[in-house]
Amino acid sequence: MTERPLILVTNDDGITAPGIRALIDVMSEIGNVVVVAPDKPQSAMGHAITINNTLYLNKVSAEQAVVTEYACSGTPVDCVKMAVVEILHRKPDLCVSGINHGSNSSINVIYSGTMSAAVEAAIEGIPSIGFSLCDYDWNADFTPTKEYIRRIATEVLKNGLPDGVLLNVNFPKLAEDAIQGIKVCRQAKAMWMETFDKRKSPSGREYYWLTGEFVNQDNGEDTDEWALNNGYISVVPVQFDLTAYHAMPQLQNWKL
Amino acid sequence: MTERPLILVTNDDGITAPGIRALIDVMSEIGNVVVVAPDKPQSAMGHAITINNTLYLNKVSAEQAVVTEYACSGTPVDCVKMAVVEILHRKPDLCVSGINHGSNSSINVIYSGTMSAAVEAAIEGIPSIGFSLCDYDWNADFTPTKEYIRRIATEVLKNGLPDGVLLNVNFPKLAEDAIQGIKVCRQAKAMWMETFDKRKSPSGREYYWLTGEFVNQDNGEDTDEWALNNGYISVVPVQFDLTAYHAMPQLQNWKL
Repeated sequence: MTERPLILVTNDDGITAPGIRALIDVMSEIGNVVVVAPDKPQSAMGHAITINNTLYLNKVSAEQAVVTEYACSGTPVDCVKMAVVEILHRKPDLCVSGINHGSNSSINVIYSGTMSAAVEAAIEGIPSIGFSLCDYDWNADFTPTKEYIRRIATEVLKNGLPDGVLLNVNFPKLAEDAIQGIKVCRQAKAMWMETFDKRKSPSGREYYWLTGEFVNQDNGEDTDEWALNNGYISVVPVQFDLTAYHAMPQLQNWKL
Repeated sequence: MTERPLILVTNDDGITAPGIRALIDVMSEIGNVVVVAPDKPQSAMGHAITINNTLYLNKVSAEQAVVTEYACSGTPVDCVKMAVVEILHRKPDLCVSGINHGSNSSINVIYSGTMSAAVEAAIEGIPSIGFSLCDYDWNADFTPTKEYIRRIATEVLKNGLPDGVLLNVNFPKLAEDAIQGIKVCRQAKAMWMETFDKRKSPSGREYYWLTGEFVNQDNGEDTDEWALNNGYISVVPVQFDLTAYHAMPQLQNWKL
């Protein structure tokens, strides 16, 4: 037997979230797990990093615990950076982020702290996967995802991932026997149509809450939205080279 | 004469930054300008949005001012969303973000609040450009950028941009007569090597500052880093479909 892989686990819902507990359970079966996760919810933080404030890092697991856990005051991306530099002192063999309480399919990949943590790990050259369940409930049932997560993580540990690529895995909110399988997909062209809920504070000052409706403008059967709506687990390979290569010839013709 | 275009201006250094002032000057020459920018610095916020906190929006320009300006308590992405929904009540003809005090070339596009604001506008279907000057100084000289910004913005207003594409424009820190011209580039493969500056608070608690060194691993002469280091203005077409299409066949062969 070869040595057990070193696996970094993080998320954006915070270290106490049931989703990360489920992920820690699965990863503990296949490797040595270190958890570095935000000390409070950090959803929708995107790829934010903390440069204008101090960062705190506290070991929260007991000395005799099997899994070492740290709570970090920063964003999900800060967690990955601190884990690699201050705690592990080397690249882990795998970084997994989640399981997010709620979808990170289609355009949500851009806003998601869960996915940004996974992207950060990939930038640093670590094989990396973000997992999300399409159920925003704190008490969501993560049980149906576990066997699939184990299989996907094992496959990534075995095969690696192409340079500059990580995985965005989303689970439909379904019982295990209702899940149709796994589909490799592209990111659907979808967006949020925002509305702002305008209110008045007790002192009479106007303030807003950001709310919105998810609008999928893409009927492609090769998309993550289609997969999820049809009972499949969606796996989208994600890259952080944002260059729109196809647009370069057009721009080169401009008179600049 | 056709009607003057409606131009939304935002940034991440905050509404008082000299960089956004320079951008407002240029945009006022070519269109009707509305500014919605953060009321405080929001650098490195990535694509964060504010969902767990309230948002404030304050008109800060005088009634008789030529340019209408609003300060928003949220992130750069929040600013774009609020501008479109609450202030303009329609898509502007162009959104420009910046001029950022500091580089947003290569991997910085991922961390940048300036670029995330521009990405958000593009998601909403608005032609959109992020401008950055490779000079972190608050008193940086933005004068050499102005004529180029006017030309690039005018070109985008005339030609539009391909669907799902925006521009990431970075200026070298050079006098106008030293600038070699404009190059359409790809995003260089570069990253930040972090270090954490560990300190003790007056009460004895350990805390950290995130610091780091920029490392360019990419010698390609078609990259934004090469362009900037050789006196050119870099223009990278950026997309928010993060699908790594080239990785899909390999994943489809996995036993999942």
